[in-house]
Amino acid sequence: MPNALFNFNLQATDGRARAGVYHTPHGDVSTPVFMPVGTQATVKAVLPRDLHAMDASVVLANTYHLYLRPGDRLIADLGGLHRFMAWDGPILTDSGGFQVFSLSQRRKIDTNGVTFRSHLDGSKHHFTPEKAVAIQENLGADIIVCFDECTDPNDYTYNVAALTRTHAWAERCKAAKSRPDQALFGIVQGAIYADLRDESARYLTQLGFDGYAIGGLSVGESKSDMHAMLDVVDPILPARQPRYLMGVGTPEDLVECVARGVDMFDCVLPTRMARTGTAMTRTGRLVVRNAPFAEDPAPIDAGCTCYTCTHFSRAYVRHLIKAKEILAHQLLSIHNLHLMITIARELREAILRGEFQAYRDEFWRMRVES
Amino acid sequence: MPNALFNFNLQATDGRARAGVYHTPHGDVSTPVFMPVGTQATVKAVLPRDLHAMDASVVLANTYHLYLRPGDRLIADLGGLHRFMAWDGPILTDSGGFQVFSLSQRRKIDTNGVTFRSHLDGSKHHFTPEKAVAIQENLGADIIVCFDECTDPNDYTYNVAALTRTHAWAERCKAAKSRPDQALFGIVQGAIYADLRDESARYLTQLGFDGYAIGGLSVGESKSDMHAMLDVVDPILPARQPRYLMGVGTPEDLVECVARGVDMFDCVLPTRMARTGTAMTRTGRLVVRNAPFAEDPAPIDAGCTCYTCTHFSRAYVRHLIKAKEILAHQLLSIHNLHLMITIARELREAILRGEFQAYRDEFWRMRVES
Repeated sequence: MPNALFNFNLQATDGRARAGVYHTPHGDVSTPVFMPVGTQATVKAVLPRDLHAMDASVVLANTYHLYLRPGDRLIADLGGLHRFMAWDGPILTDSGGFQVFSLSQRRKIDTNGVTFRSHLDGSKHHFTPEKAVAIQENLGADIIVCFDECTDPNDYTYNVAALTRTHAWAERCKAAKSRPDQALFGIVQGAIYADLRDESARYLTQLGFDGYAIGGLSVGESKSDMHAMLDVVDPILPARQPRYLMGVGTPEDLVECVARGVDMFDCVLPTRMARTGTAMTRTGRLVVRNAPFAEDPAPIDAGCTCYTCTHFSRAYVRHLIKAKEILAHQLLSIHNLHLMITIARELREAILRGEFQAYRDEFWRMRVES
Repeated sequence: MPNALFNFNLQATDGRARAGVYHTPHGDVSTPVFMPVGTQATVKAVLPRDLHAMDASVVLANTYHLYLRPGDRLIADLGGLHRFMAWDGPILTDSGGFQVFSLSQRRKIDTNGVTFRSHLDGSKHHFTPEKAVAIQENLGADIIVCFDECTDPNDYTYNVAALTRTHAWAERCKAAKSRPDQALFGIVQGAIYADLRDESARYLTQLGFDGYAIGGLSVGESKSDMHAMLDVVDPILPARQPRYLMGVGTPEDLVECVARGVDMFDCVLPTRMARTGTAMTRTGRLVVRNAPFAEDPAPIDAGCTCYTCTHFSRAYVRHLIKAKEILAHQLLSIHNLHLMITIARELREAILRGEFQAYRDEFWRMRVES
């Protein structure tokens, strides 16, 4: 399924770590990349110009949320998601599968799709693979993904049946896709079972997609399970196409999953932690709202070049948190997102220099010392 | 009381309207000017770089609030308010008088000052003129103001006594002031009584201050009362010093009070209205949260050059409001503040061209037509 508008240029590998450039209609994405999450067509508390300032290259939006509110047809009528949210760079929409299974109420699954009730007003809706693609075509993101079933990872028998559905749905998504200016990613599922992940990676690769998402690995399984599943799919997925690990993660996840062949990441953690008054750092977390920082003149992170750390003290950010000022969310979101984007870029640069392992060793050495 | 670091250059007058430049240690302020309010050392939901982008030149902060939290001594220890809130332009702090009388609990006034309890935790505090100046010297704003008593405007007898206290306190503030890099403004009081306003303007002018604030005119009195009081003080206040109308106002207030000799304005309305989902416009208000804007592709204000109006539709801003996204507050605050700053600049340009009355006529013609 070659698509002239999309091309993944694998520039370097270092062990299993990869550096590349993914060309999309709205610009190039250098990988490894961390993608800020804009669930409701806004990265929470962050202006698009702030995203540019922190060198964000691609952002996510959510099919389930935008379908329910304000509606994908309205967004299409207004010129598509890029114009709607004033983000002129690449956008990726997930299919809504995860949200249908995690947020909605009284869902009913059959081979054709899922019937569910809105978490907003209880209204009844039906998603099929074709519908999920049609919504994503209305939204108009550069990268769209297949509709899949997100499962309880602890029930093997159920996962066998769910995987059969997810694979059939992937085939229907591929058939339904009509816009040439969108890339379609398949989603590898199979929970924490090596045989199912193996089967899923092979099945989807044979069908052929523009890229491959790896789903169902941010739902509470252990890190070792997550790493084991990446070890299974890495040699199967085509080297010349991008791999996207959905909903992951933390700084350490970036380092360890890049080591296992992942190119793209997203996670709500940076903006969610910001709203609880917590800063992410290379070595862990800084709960800025805590009393020890009340008089601290230091920035959140002394080495950080983000707008927050180059302008404000921990004491100031803590004051904003205690005073319930919105600016606290803004400044912590900017810092946390900037950190994840910076780590992804550093990983990329290390891979291009052939020094990935040295970077990884240093990353863990700093953690142990702190 | 000449101060080499402060100089008001009156560039032009047009009728009673004035255009000037106020030189301060942190930069020049072109007047007429609208000053965004940053009560708790943050203009709510607006980054300092957003303030620069909208050409804000001077911002306010609040003595009462910052004294209670995080404390003026902490801010002094951290290098002062400019560094604390990362605003490198001029800052004005009000004295806390208004907040002591409007927010605090169980206050007790005597000739020495005011005893009150914090609205945050009920703790007991005592403000004197000397204390209000000392706090403002710790904060380190470019412009500080005298501690005054804000009164119920409807009780003449009480206002006579209160004005005597306010004048004595102004004299004590002037005596207490010690920092040469701060300008001290007196505050003209006298409620809605022409004889008291006349007396107050004369008394303070004779004492001599770097500039003159006009207080107590944003507390529910009628527009005609406000205008009448400005008509009283305008010929008394020194032409070569800046006049600041505290807590006012709306676009129409800017036009009509510039017409009556005012140079400086502040008001919480732009950011407060933003948080209720309402946009300010030249001709009134646009309640963006309302249903008619759900599918409206137009910007909030077609002629507006702010970041919000040049990037986003009413439909998008309404979506953010309905989805309870913080970005709604950010975008509406940017628009509303930009509008007030722009109107102040247009007034200035009209005065410099000698076309103030034409601008004022056109402003009201547009209102009538809309």
